[in-house]
Amino acid sequence: MTGFLSRRVFAVEWGHCDPAGIVFNGRFYEYFDWGTWTLFEKALGVKPAELAGAFGIIGIPLDDVRARFLAPARFGDEVEHTSQLVALRRSSFEVEHRLMVRGVLAVEGHETRVWAGSDGAEPSRIRAKPMPEDVVARLRAC
Amino acid sequence: MTGFLSRRVFAVEWGHCDPAGIVFNGRFYEYFDWGTWTLFEKALGVKPAELAGAFGIIGIPLDDVRARFLAPARFGDEVEHTSQLVALRRSSFEVEHRLMVRGVLAVEGHETRVWAGSDGAEPSRIRAKPMPEDVVARLRAC
Amino acid sequence: MTGFLSRRVFAVEWGHCDPAGIVFNGRFYEYFDWGTWTLFEKALGVKPAELAGAFGIIGIPLDDVRARFLAPARFGDEVEHTSQLVALRRSSFEVEHRLMVRGVLAVEGHETRVWAGSDGAEPSRIRAKPMPEDVVARLRAC
Amino acid sequence: MTGFLSRRVFAVEWGHCDPAGIVFNGRFYEYFDWGTWTLFEKALGVKPAELAGAFGIIGIPLDDVRARFLAPARFGDEVEHTSQLVALRRSSFEVEHRLMVRGVLAVEGHETRVWAGSDGAEPSRIRAKPMPEDVVARLRAC
Repeated sequence: MTGFLSRRVFAVEWGHCDPAGIVFNGRFYEYFDWGTWTLFEKALGVKPAELAGAFGIIGIPLDDVRARFLAPARFGDEVEHTSQLVALRRSSFEVEHRLMVRGVLAVEGHETRVWAGSDGAEPSRIRAKPMPEDVVARLRAC
Repeated sequence: MTGFLSRRVFAVEWGHCDPAGIVFNGRFYEYFDWGTWTLFEKALGVKPAELAGAFGIIGIPLDDVRARFLAPARFGDEVEHTSQLVALRRSSFEVEHRLMVRGVLAVEGHETRVWAGSDGAEPSRIRAKPMPEDVVARLRAC
Repeated sequence: MTGFLSRRVFAVEWGHCDPAGIVFNGRFYEYFDWGTWTLFEKALGVKPAELAGAFGIIGIPLDDVRARFLAPARFGDEVEHTSQLVALRRSSFEVEHRLMVRGVLAVEGHETRVWAGSDGAEPSRIRAKPMPEDVVARLRAC
Repeated sequence: MTGFLSRRVFAVEWGHCDPAGIVFNGRFYEYFDWGTWTLFEKALGVKPAELAGAFGIIGIPLDDVRARFLAPARFGDEVEHTSQLVALRRSSFEVEHRLMVRGVLAVEGHETRVWAGSDGAEPSRIRAKPMPEDVVARLRAC
């Protein structure tokens, strides 16, 4: 399937880079995270901070992440970040991130996240919940 | 006054440093923060994550921070970090941080923090609360 | 004096916030840092990553930082960040940062930075250098 | 194969956690990174900051990372982090990270890294280099 896609452009900051002059690996997951929130905001029309309240969930925690580093990104580089929904299941989904720098694919990321609420019997526990029909419908649209 | 003092030693990590090869300024406030939690743990015998619960507060948020950068700290440098309580008021306190690297004072920091609880009438608001007598007594001791 | 001023707007990200639901203190210095690079880019017309090369310097390292936290900033909050040059000396300068959130001043920051090159006799040492006339002239302009 | 293994214990800091009260995903890659430097220090007897100089390389950049999040880690949690070399090739290697929290496996990570030097003809380019015999021998040892 190919689902909803969002795109954002940002610049690599000084504090994101390590002594080799390239983006420190941990920062890319901040980029992915923001990309996924942006995707949901665009698909559902709900602001990131209101997503949990709007749907009665705790959040969309990560289950699994993969990243491949193909070319370096450096201080000041303009990054074109595309986030696309690539799988939708009953209570989880997958997002693919592609970061283009100077016209080449620099980083590829793949997140699996859970639509998560609290357990009725034990509220401090996090539990996967079925995604609502209308959320699924909007995320499927390209 | 000179109050409770704690000391910890740690190494500068690769991901803490910027393209100039020195610790990125934002990381020093993470060091200060951890130093203050360590100070409270040692003074009060309460683990950081249990401080709020033990005293019925929300936390110890920052009001004001100052830092002076005197010498660079680099990847792998061993940092000797001393945190000392230097002022105690009814519902706020000040902590001084000194980071020694290779025998010289590299960074000096100064935090003013508030002993904060939620407002009875409006629980979502943060309000300064008087510090308990026994907390004050333990923090005064050198 | 009142010197060059720049303004940018950004949103607080999920990963910037701590368990109290507010921006973790260390992140504000990342905001300040990016604000200062933005100020220089706008004043001098030189991209951040090209500043050092264009003027034969190593960078603009921090000497001293102060911050006051007046109101919390939370996940998703839109921040209006104003950075203004407030002092210019032979080889150092000061930048004032103001972060407005929901119409109130949430954070005030003050950076003192050095125009820094390498020492001729000992290239691994960092040394303050006089700021070029045209850089000074452009930074003075409002 | 099972190669060199190192272990370290650390506590989750306040600034590592997000508004859900759990470690923000980007921080785990900082943990992994520090684990791999620790592994090399223990296996080779060379301090992290001296690794590049000792072997004439630029560093050990990441090619590919995977992480699975099985249980949450929270502020103050003690983490037992085990890093083990699980594959060694001519000019790359793989490290497996396991983070245990309260007796359960909380996070599993897998890094593929390159033994990297600069290209003779074009020094600004990063190139995989064959790993020296004695480095390989020491990393193979359990």
